[in-house]
Amino acid sequence: MAVYTEVSDQELATFLRDYDIGRAVSFKGIAEGVENSNYLLRTDRGTFILTLYEKRVASEDLPYFLGLMDHLAGKGIACPTPIHGRDGKALRELCGRPAAVIGFLKGLWPRRIEPHHCALLGEAMAKMHLAGGSFAMTRENDLSVAGWRPLFEACCKRTHEIEEGLEGIMEDELARLEKSWPVDLPTGVIHADLFPDNVFFLGERLSGLIDFYFACNDFLAYDLAICFNAWCFEGDGSFNVTKARRLLTGYGGVRPLDKSEIEALPLLACGGAMRFLLTRLYDWLHHPEGAMVSLKDPREYLGKLRFHQQVKDASSYGLDEAS
Amino acid sequence: MAVYTEVSDQELATFLRDYDIGRAVSFKGIAEGVENSNYLLRTDRGTFILTLYEKRVASEDLPYFLGLMDHLAGKGIACPTPIHGRDGKALRELCGRPAAVIGFLKGLWPRRIEPHHCALLGEAMAKMHLAGGSFAMTRENDLSVAGWRPLFEACCKRTHEIEEGLEGIMEDELARLEKSWPVDLPTGVIHADLFPDNVFFLGERLSGLIDFYFACNDFLAYDLAICFNAWCFEGDGSFNVTKARRLLTGYGGVRPLDKSEIEALPLLACGGAMRFLLTRLYDWLHHPEGAMVSLKDPREYLGKLRFHQQVKDASSYGLDEAS
Repeated sequence: MAVYTEVSDQELATFLRDYDIGRAVSFKGIAEGVENSNYLLRTDRGTFILTLYEKRVASEDLPYFLGLMDHLAGKGIACPTPIHGRDGKALRELCGRPAAVIGFLKGLWPRRIEPHHCALLGEAMAKMHLAGGSFAMTRENDLSVAGWRPLFEACCKRTHEIEEGLEGIMEDELARLEKSWPVDLPTGVIHADLFPDNVFFLGERLSGLIDFYFACNDFLAYDLAICFNAWCFEGDGSFNVTKARRLLTGYGGVRPLDKSEIEALPLLACGGAMRFLLTRLYDWLHHPEGAMVSLKDPREYLGKLRFHQQVKDASSYGLDEAS
Repeated sequence: MAVYTEVSDQELATFLRDYDIGRAVSFKGIAEGVENSNYLLRTDRGTFILTLYEKRVASEDLPYFLGLMDHLAGKGIACPTPIHGRDGKALRELCGRPAAVIGFLKGLWPRRIEPHHCALLGEAMAKMHLAGGSFAMTRENDLSVAGWRPLFEACCKRTHEIEEGLEGIMEDELARLEKSWPVDLPTGVIHADLFPDNVFFLGERLSGLIDFYFACNDFLAYDLAICFNAWCFEGDGSFNVTKARRLLTGYGGVRPLDKSEIEALPLLACGGAMRFLLTRLYDWLHHPEGAMVSLKDPREYLGKLRFHQQVKDASSYGLDEAS
């Protein structure tokens, strides 16, 4: 939740001259998204999101993210479409930062998850995975198993500030994940951050997926594993197997999982929990004094990790009933 | 800059049923305004601002603020209009807080102030002052001279954290203001917080005034004194007399100032600087740890106070040239 870069009206007017989208009639910072500065821009011709990419997003990755949105939108996936300037370029510069104008997507993200949201999410995710199959660019997942140990090492000496004994728990699990992480699952373009605030609904339908700034090439089933963590736990920490089953059923109806993927789900889910435990831990311990970000408690993901550690097979995610 | 209250989609849908404005198709927290939670709400019938009033705004004052916006809009002043529910009420409740839906106002607030902005502001302020003359409700200005000493006493022992010697400077000035503050100037409804982010422009015209949550009954000329502070200093602390002159000229063209008001301007300007010095100081020293607000340096207003202290008469604000 933050607007980091203040754009003056003159800079905005100059910037918009390179587009064919009219003149600004309203321009408001949006209190969503901690990675970038997002503005809701209304012109006399439509509504757009103007994003300034702050330093946490690597600028060399931006062509991948914007190209992917273009590609997916072209394949009929409901996602924001980058607006291209008069010279054809979508990635531009504003206030000394990379910047892009993106089409506005209607919809509200669900503050209270219901099972039907998970079913629609599974279906949309599978369609996105299929559509991503023909996307030519690739980007490694720098927050997959190889990226976890450096994060852990930057935090491990202070994990006791969060919870006594956390260092040992994480060290053991990290070693297990590094040893057992799959190498031969079906891969493709994954979103890698499909949390509820990145999925919009309009009435009973899913209206779009947003925020592709963690997208990368990785195991497709890892996207599902992230969503077990992001969508299927209740506020009290309990796992809602109905939501997981609806997620898997929705997904499988479009792209059936193969046997290796199903077997890997518990391990991938542990990995998903580890990934968010690590980044939340890192942010918690390293946030700058007075930064305008709302920090999320890392312990939520320790609880989720513990759940997945005791899962023996995909039936705990409702898959027996689904298949 | 903050959204304090998270509204669920179900709560929003239920809330909107009491209005005749359609169903939500988009709902985004706005990163502007530190006092309340503001959402930009799009429905299938239009665009609105949904405001939840947080504790810093006294709920007993809300009928005054909303009634004033209704009154001013009815008099043709460009300002947001409260939307009334099916039962006629504009002030409702959402998530346990007072809440209102307000019409959306086009325009951008000027990040770089130019003299013509000040001229248009003066004109709009004077029209607002005249239109407020027939508003029946009254609200005392709790941030005028009588409200300053309690704020000072809550801060004075820690002023040295901001600047050495600040306590004595403020004590002397506060005593002078309390002794000399006018008692017989023309009064009426003032906005009392007309900073640039509360004034919208669209191309070359002023499209509206927003954020009436400090409005009150006080000396009309005090609104001008606040704007000297808010609009007429450059980033380097220097006073731009051209901007002040344009402000006064714009104002005087609609509502000429009388002699007593002109004479009082330097003192009122000191008071305006003192008021914002005090509230910034208070916020600086008392902000809760980790609060998601961007604090403003109180010393900016110490510099402004010092400028106004050495002003002998309104010619320093360009009035000789304007009249």
